[in-house]
Amino acid sequence: MTVLAFLDGTLADPGAAHLRVDDLGLMRGDGVFETILVTGGTARELRPHLDRLARSAAMLDLPEPDDEAWQRATRLVIDNWRGSPEFAIKLVYTRGVEGDPSATPTAFALGLEISERVVRARADGVAAVTLDRGIDPGLGERAPWLLLGAKSLSYAVNMAAGREAARRGADDVVFTATDGSVLEGPTSTVIIARERTLYTPPATIGILPGTTQAAVFRGAERAGWTTKIEPLTLDDLHGADGVFLASSVRKLTRVHTLDGKTLPDSTPLHRELAEAYETVYA
Amino acid sequence: MTVLAFLDGTLADPGAAHLRVDDLGLMRGDGVFETILVTGGTARELRPHLDRLARSAAMLDLPEPDDEAWQRATRLVIDNWRGSPEFAIKLVYTRGVEGDPSATPTAFALGLEISERVVRARADGVAAVTLDRGIDPGLGERAPWLLLGAKSLSYAVNMAAGREAARRGADDVVFTATDGSVLEGPTSTVIIARERTLYTPPATIGILPGTTQAAVFRGAERAGWTTKIEPLTLDDLHGADGVFLASSVRKLTRVHTLDGKTLPDSTPLHRELAEAYETVYA
Repeated sequence: MTVLAFLDGTLADPGAAHLRVDDLGLMRGDGVFETILVTGGTARELRPHLDRLARSAAMLDLPEPDDEAWQRATRLVIDNWRGSPEFAIKLVYTRGVEGDPSATPTAFALGLEISERVVRARADGVAAVTLDRGIDPGLGERAPWLLLGAKSLSYAVNMAAGREAARRGADDVVFTATDGSVLEGPTSTVIIARERTLYTPPATIGILPGTTQAAVFRGAERAGWTTKIEPLTLDDLHGADGVFLASSVRKLTRVHTLDGKTLPDSTPLHRELAEAYETVYA
Repeated sequence: MTVLAFLDGTLADPGAAHLRVDDLGLMRGDGVFETILVTGGTARELRPHLDRLARSAAMLDLPEPDDEAWQRATRLVIDNWRGSPEFAIKLVYTRGVEGDPSATPTAFALGLEISERVVRARADGVAAVTLDRGIDPGLGERAPWLLLGAKSLSYAVNMAAGREAARRGADDVVFTATDGSVLEGPTSTVIIARERTLYTPPATIGILPGTTQAAVFRGAERAGWTTKIEPLTLDDLHGADGVFLASSVRKLTRVHTLDGKTLPDSTPLHRELAEAYETVYA
């Protein structure tokens, strides 16, 4: 099941061709996106997702997204969805056609089934490997043209990291900075639990601020947890009671193995935190 | 004038829609490309361009490009071109549609007019600024998953760098590594001239091997120049007799100003080297 809605409020056949070959989203990976989880007819964290879309667009000097139009397109996909009760909506916003001075951005919302692989990872956890991202934690603020922390369509490296993980027999990746600090996953935020406190690295080190991570923190705080945003090292991960990857579609996924080393069993902890996260939407 | 040929040998209307929204080239910047200059009906450096396309594809774990089919598509664009005698052909090769196990790559060749801006820069030269790329020169070999030196469709950063240059009142960019060494332009190779020797940095520092740079070197060698591939510093650029940016469409473009500082006038040198480059195709 797939549902496609353009920002002008029209539904279209997702199996048909809709884009010119010279769309800058294709030619240059020049655009931004968001992936939103829908459960029970509600788009989770829609406000933070739309805020982040606007933030990414500003970092790429794209026209400010039409917030209401994006809300309508999201609603249109939800209203026309006939697939699984839990699904994902991708919002895609590109610079439009190359060399056209009057070019309007290409903008659509696409409802998609969540892959079997992600559903399985939610239940079983994942083996992750750390991969050098080659940047230092000060770079994002020093060099905004590198678009660190923008959710751009230029995700070839994020995809290549996933293939490198598979080559190493793992399911997912934790990127590290040149000083050894923990950054993020290619499509997720890193969270660790230690003595009833949750930790995640600050977005200022050049990573994406996590919408799901923020929701997990809200739920955990309600359940009596302390939450802290501070730099993490690999030692912190190996010494934690639980290591998790958070994203819209994977929710909170447990990392059971890191770089081939089995981590302490965080199954009960994961269950508790996953429940705390769900209370945010109860 | 624009001419579009798909890899299966069909011509198509470049103004029409041809791509699904879930093409991974769009969704993830997950594909590779080449830009080739055509003059007098000949695609310059076609062999090196196709070799580099194959190299980039291998770095992204894409299926090996069908070399003959790409040659045919390129020829088809040239044969149907009715625009300016000098034009560009982009070859684009993506992973195809997301989630489709039998997905075939999306592959097309697009003939395009060369922009006024590029033609003007060839004649007048450009002001460039240096921008921190945030990587060290050993990273490319250490971390192949970062795809340094692959010509991927994920060019959002390259485009953002160009906008940063414009904000600083300049036309183009020279990226530098964390140790101060010179990398490349966002869409060009850096060449300097000093005492009848041409220098360019080695591709091993995580940059794209330049097809036009190689052709310029061949032409210059025939004209009695020495050529060297070795690391360059910003001091080398400021102390050079001439600094140039090479790419298929800009050919050899002279940098007249670097970070606001006027460089020594390299107009005669540029004329000599541009002529030497043209002899390669005479």
